[in-house]
Amino acid sequence: MPNFLSRLSLIIFIISLSFDVYAQKVEETEDAFFIKAIYDQVLSSSSCYDWLDHLSSNIGGRLSGSEAAARAVEYTRDMLDTLGLSRVHLQDCMVPHWERGEKEVVYMTSKKTGKRTNLDVLALGNSVATIATGISGEVVEVKSLDDLEKLGEAGLKGKIVFFNRPMDPTQIRTFNAYGGAVDQRVWGPTKASKYGAIGALVRSMTTKIDDIPHTGVTVNEEGNVKIPALAVSTMDAELLSATLKEGIVEVYIKTDCKTFEDAPSHNVIGEIIGSEFPEEIILVGGHLDSWDVGGGAHDDGAGCVHAMEVLNILTKLNYRPKRTLRCVLFMNEENGLGGGKAYAEASDKNNEYHLAAIESDAGGFTPRGFSADGHADIFSERYKNVSKWLPLLEPFGLSFSKGGSGADISPLKGQKGMLFGFRPDSQRYFDYHHTAADTIDAVNQRELEMGAAAITSLVYLIDKYGL
Amino acid sequence: MPNFLSRLSLIIFIISLSFDVYAQKVEETEDAFFIKAIYDQVLSSSSCYDWLDHLSSNIGGRLSGSEAAARAVEYTRDMLDTLGLSRVHLQDCMVPHWERGEKEVVYMTSKKTGKRTNLDVLALGNSVATIATGISGEVVEVKSLDDLEKLGEAGLKGKIVFFNRPMDPTQIRTFNAYGGAVDQRVWGPTKASKYGAIGALVRSMTTKIDDIPHTGVTVNEEGNVKIPALAVSTMDAELLSATLKEGIVEVYIKTDCKTFEDAPSHNVIGEIIGSEFPEEIILVGGHLDSWDVGGGAHDDGAGCVHAMEVLNILTKLNYRPKRTLRCVLFMNEENGLGGGKAYAEASDKNNEYHLAAIESDAGGFTPRGFSADGHADIFSERYKNVSKWLPLLEPFGLSFSKGGSGADISPLKGQKGMLFGFRPDSQRYFDYHHTAADTIDAVNQRELEMGAAAITSLVYLIDKYGL
Repeated sequence: MPNFLSRLSLIIFIISLSFDVYAQKVEETEDAFFIKAIYDQVLSSSSCYDWLDHLSSNIGGRLSGSEAAARAVEYTRDMLDTLGLSRVHLQDCMVPHWERGEKEVVYMTSKKTGKRTNLDVLALGNSVATIATGISGEVVEVKSLDDLEKLGEAGLKGKIVFFNRPMDPTQIRTFNAYGGAVDQRVWGPTKASKYGAIGALVRSMTTKIDDIPHTGVTVNEEGNVKIPALAVSTMDAELLSATLKEGIVEVYIKTDCKTFEDAPSHNVIGEIIGSEFPEEIILVGGHLDSWDVGGGAHDDGAGCVHAMEVLNILTKLNYRPKRTLRCVLFMNEENGLGGGKAYAEASDKNNEYHLAAIESDAGGFTPRGFSADGHADIFSERYKNVSKWLPLLEPFGLSFSKGGSGADISPLKGQKGMLFGFRPDSQRYFDYHHTAADTIDAVNQRELEMGAAAITSLVYLIDKYGL
Repeated sequence: MPNFLSRLSLIIFIISLSFDVYAQKVEETEDAFFIKAIYDQVLSSSSCYDWLDHLSSNIGGRLSGSEAAARAVEYTRDMLDTLGLSRVHLQDCMVPHWERGEKEVVYMTSKKTGKRTNLDVLALGNSVATIATGISGEVVEVKSLDDLEKLGEAGLKGKIVFFNRPMDPTQIRTFNAYGGAVDQRVWGPTKASKYGAIGALVRSMTTKIDDIPHTGVTVNEEGNVKIPALAVSTMDAELLSATLKEGIVEVYIKTDCKTFEDAPSHNVIGEIIGSEFPEEIILVGGHLDSWDVGGGAHDDGAGCVHAMEVLNILTKLNYRPKRTLRCVLFMNEENGLGGGKAYAEASDKNNEYHLAAIESDAGGFTPRGFSADGHADIFSERYKNVSKWLPLLEPFGLSFSKGGSGADISPLKGQKGMLFGFRPDSQRYFDYHHTAADTIDAVNQRELEMGAAAITSLVYLIDKYGL
């Protein structure tokens, strides 16, 4: 096509758009001002960092069923009560109750040199106790669940299986690297037990090489013998692997874990009833439980205070929402999803409709945007709609991508609303995830606050325009 | 215009573009592979973190003219020598030589309560010493340089001026907040001395409220009496301000700073000569000097190892550049720009042409993109050209913006090449800037490495396509 024709067609196209564009610009300017006001409010006077400091430093690790988890429920309910919302309440749910017990002891002995070395470990959630005197066994290193099948009972019976496939450091988004390695922790021990293994060690889920073990949930499949299962720090995983290259290694394991009866617990809910469409709910949430070690600061105290701050900021800015804005702090994301399931069941039973649900469960780092998910019937149109807001969000470093949202809100997918996952920068997340190092010191106040502002901005746009 | 016409014009427009687009796609795929290879290489096997650890932990703070600065020159030259470049050499320059001397002592005494409180302070670079017994004076708090003029000699003579305008926390990019407050540190003391002030305290340049003082350069204007000038931590600045609200406060200051004769020093330069256009230079640089406290890890050890890593990665990937790639570690950015000026003078004298120069001097945080600057005659066309690379860079979270580049490379602007500033996430930078806390512990290895990969990707594209 000749060049002038191409140019002409471009000009015609632009003119045809320009009337719409003008009307849109006025709205956009108003929105830009309000979003700037949200950021100003958060960055100059917000409560989320102090809330998080209390949750992670004073209350600390708060595994489902623990006394600390109960204190976290009380504390966040009390804080929501101070915000002047329409309603704050606790929602009942049942949760598993697992306890680590006495500190684990693991050491390896090289059969070649006779040298004994203590390893930095943490029992995995759902692990069982060893007998009081501990257990010993020869170590077999594997890199995948498939390796188990190859080795079979002949290679695994009576052994301690060592899962040592590292997270892929070349993944730009570290959650993808986690997703590519975590099958070893979740399914490895129970599948090894099927072939007669008596214990399992799993390389910690991080790309960092250090001496900090990362716990997390392991699943006991129905019918398989439950065996003690522990995470070993990456540094000791490297050491164990190197020692195995020299010859036979025996490992001693002593764990003291106990699983109690399921326990009653609560989701914490605060809401502002919408003025025009109260039946359309916009949910913001995080999960209140954490692992028992550390302070659960990034995972997921950050998400809880983000969600609380959204309602706090909009109230402080005298914003009167059209739709119902609901902050939900879910119990038991880490080892059961008891809270998320109970919430969705109650919601479905009450014929509620969540127009949107946004979960923050990726830490309190600098925001990069949101992943979006939803029912296939309507998702692609809605994704186009939210993408129109990009000019308002890009100045704050935010974008949209398609992808999963959050474990707690995923049971709401059947309501056909839109689900969002808050996505902050992920580079440092797996330095802290499920470890004793996940404390307030690992959280930068400005980064945390900007997360709250980012989510509030999205909530504001959804509330104003719908989806 | 009717809707169908608008659609038709759009279709014509798209078809007219599609032939060009096809050819472009092939190139883009090749480039996408190479850029992914750069990231893979850096994230799985790079040297920059180890280099930075040595620079900041073993060599430490390395102010121009110091023995540590000389050791940093030797170390980085030796490291560049291992990379198999075309040429590595030192370039002479002259630098100021200022020393802090004995630890500063500052305390305030409330005239109302008689209470004496020590303040956390650091003398500013170029500050003079007090007499050996120290000086005392009544404090006058100001918020701006304009306040000095209003107070005049009547209000300031014999006083100690306390500059206390905070950095604006609502700025999304923290460097903008720094730019809006740093006039107090750079010009405040000398302008106060003009009105007879005998000393100056300046609120530390950070939005964080803590007990860490931030040093930095202050300028002594020709003709004004040089007075002792110190940074005070934000926490103590708040305390001093609160105490002043209760009544008169006297401050005692003792400093031991000395300025020696200018000293000889060096820029460190390594380069790979281009195979097709050797006369077109693409420079990557950071500055090797830092303040004397802390380890100069983010400022600007990170920038130095970024620049070194660019040449290292491309060599490891067997990339043979068309243009000359030059890594320059500048001396004396912090208090004089001796290295940057000497480099530009020599370059101009040798009729060199820098097609592009990229400076990394904003820390080793997760990359967000590059600011771009250049000569007005040609800048806007070139900015359009580099923007065409966005589809290749956006998957790594990178974008371009217009804005200043870097202090060391700015004297090259006359050569009419394009100047870039590497822009990582800025939220944490002013937690560490010019403090004892700017150590390797403040640097995340993945974030640092991704910075090196980002800069290498830009260098690759400029080298391959020109500008």
